[in-house]
Amino acid sequence: MNCVKCKTKAVIGLPRHNAAFCKPCFNEFVHDQVSRAIKAERMFGRADRILVAVSGGKDSLALWDVLLKLGYHADALYVDLGIPGYSAKSREEVERYADRVAKPCHATLLIHTVQEEEGAGIRELADLINRPTCSACGTIKRYQFNRAAVEQDYDVMATGHNLDDEAARLLGNVLHWQDDYLDKQSPSLPASVEGFAKKVKPLYRLTERELAAYAVLNRIDYIVEECPMAKGSKLLLYKEVLNRLETESPGTKQRFYWGFLEKQAKARPVPTSMAEKDQATLRPCATCGQPTTAETCSYCKMMARAKAGIPR
Amino acid sequence: MNCVKCKTKAVIGLPRHNAAFCKPCFNEFVHDQVSRAIKAERMFGRADRILVAVSGGKDSLALWDVLLKLGYHADALYVDLGIPGYSAKSREEVERYADRVAKPCHATLLIHTVQEEEGAGIRELADLINRPTCSACGTIKRYQFNRAAVEQDYDVMATGHNLDDEAARLLGNVLHWQDDYLDKQSPSLPASVEGFAKKVKPLYRLTERELAAYAVLNRIDYIVEECPMAKGSKLLLYKEVLNRLETESPGTKQRFYWGFLEKQAKARPVPTSMAEKDQATLRPCATCGQPTTAETCSYCKMMARAKAGIPR
Repeated sequence: MNCVKCKTKAVIGLPRHNAAFCKPCFNEFVHDQVSRAIKAERMFGRADRILVAVSGGKDSLALWDVLLKLGYHADALYVDLGIPGYSAKSREEVERYADRVAKPCHATLLIHTVQEEEGAGIRELADLINRPTCSACGTIKRYQFNRAAVEQDYDVMATGHNLDDEAARLLGNVLHWQDDYLDKQSPSLPASVEGFAKKVKPLYRLTERELAAYAVLNRIDYIVEECPMAKGSKLLLYKEVLNRLETESPGTKQRFYWGFLEKQAKARPVPTSMAEKDQATLRPCATCGQPTTAETCSYCKMMARAKAGIPR
Repeated sequence: MNCVKCKTKAVIGLPRHNAAFCKPCFNEFVHDQVSRAIKAERMFGRADRILVAVSGGKDSLALWDVLLKLGYHADALYVDLGIPGYSAKSREEVERYADRVAKPCHATLLIHTVQEEEGAGIRELADLINRPTCSACGTIKRYQFNRAAVEQDYDVMATGHNLDDEAARLLGNVLHWQDDYLDKQSPSLPASVEGFAKKVKPLYRLTERELAAYAVLNRIDYIVEECPMAKGSKLLLYKEVLNRLETESPGTKQRFYWGFLEKQAKARPVPTSMAEKDQATLRPCATCGQPTTAETCSYCKMMARAKAGIPR
């Protein structure tokens, strides 16, 4: 199998593009897909300051790497959730990448530690308020990333969601016909309201497999295991099912997700963020000052409930 | 496991309804689901003459059986496609059921034989015109059923499509975002245009598994094998994938398909048939007189192409 561009020996085949690439041409392909995503969805420009949400997994580290290689001003935030046997290892991968690649490019790694800030790790917090860990984790990460981006004047927040993530989420939303979620499922949500950062997903044109290959070929170490809290999650089931369809018909995921985006663009040229809908009723949280539709934001409510029970 | 209605020993469990039934209560459940479908989608009334499209499989024979037991005036049409090793056996099952149950209820079985009418079976016809067998089969069956229903003054044509069929078809249409097909995917398509029969699917609230159980419990013999031409078909793959999701979350198929119908009903209270859209341009086929948007209808075009090559 030879590279479709330069005809040297290929290192990866991409059935959905009916193509194969050598390492340099594959890197070019990945960079090109990210550039096309940034341009097509008007994500950010050369002058913008970007905050990448990194987890230690292949996607977010590959995203940080591609943005730096493309010459963007991209810092990163890692939120240490204190998951036993997982957070320490994932944090190590993030710090290693930051030291080796990001810092020499004058990029900064910010770290927020939930244990230090709130006095307990995610599992303990979730247990205390009797909520599923993944749901508490979502609230914490959304809050921490948004606050850091807004307080430190980043123009945009970028996450490592890839085509598999977005197609799986879309399948879940379609199976339940969740119109509210379908409306919001865009790779670029504008910062329509003061206090909410613009959010973008520059990897939506690349699959999980392609990003794993990018990380391996470019010697980016990452945590391979899924988060132990995510076992049995619906998203993993939807990914499994989409992989089954992809094997039979390469290109199924991209037709499904990109087709949805085209359909959506025709129906409604500018995507609506959750915040935009609630614009009329937003006010500063009484506890932290972040925007919320209630007296206290959901993050502060959660922490107040948890703290009422945390042993000192 | 006991019957949720009468507390005697259950013969079948229905995880999606969190229920189990004995034989009489299960039959009542099946009859009730069909009655609800007929009512909800205004399919037909007591005075209407119904033509059931039967194939020899569990679904269409169960449909004929339920309609007769519910006291409807339901005749049936079997189209013998001449598939070696399959059509003879499926025809036998249809004739056996007709003799044993339908005829004593004063219902009639009509039979059209493609080999007799067109001089060749489906495989030979498809080969001659170089078209996939399933696509040629679809054209033939749609044409034969519609013509029989219209020429013999039936009020409505009923097919045995079940929840699995409709959910799989919906999944395919959604994966490709085929708006035209999505628009037409209704369990009841009105006879909006002269020459096109009204088409209904009274089994859309029942799964494949439930219909197999109904056939077995009521001693309706049917052809168990899938049509040999359908091997590797996309619909079978979509069914497999939906079964995987259903196992993890009972009720997935019904939420997906019924949710779609609710969404569709809100957006557009009356479903549009293909014919309605083309109403302005319909005229009688120059060869057979059936309505078509072209000079000659697709069935007659296909047969003309095939006959040009059939050895006399």
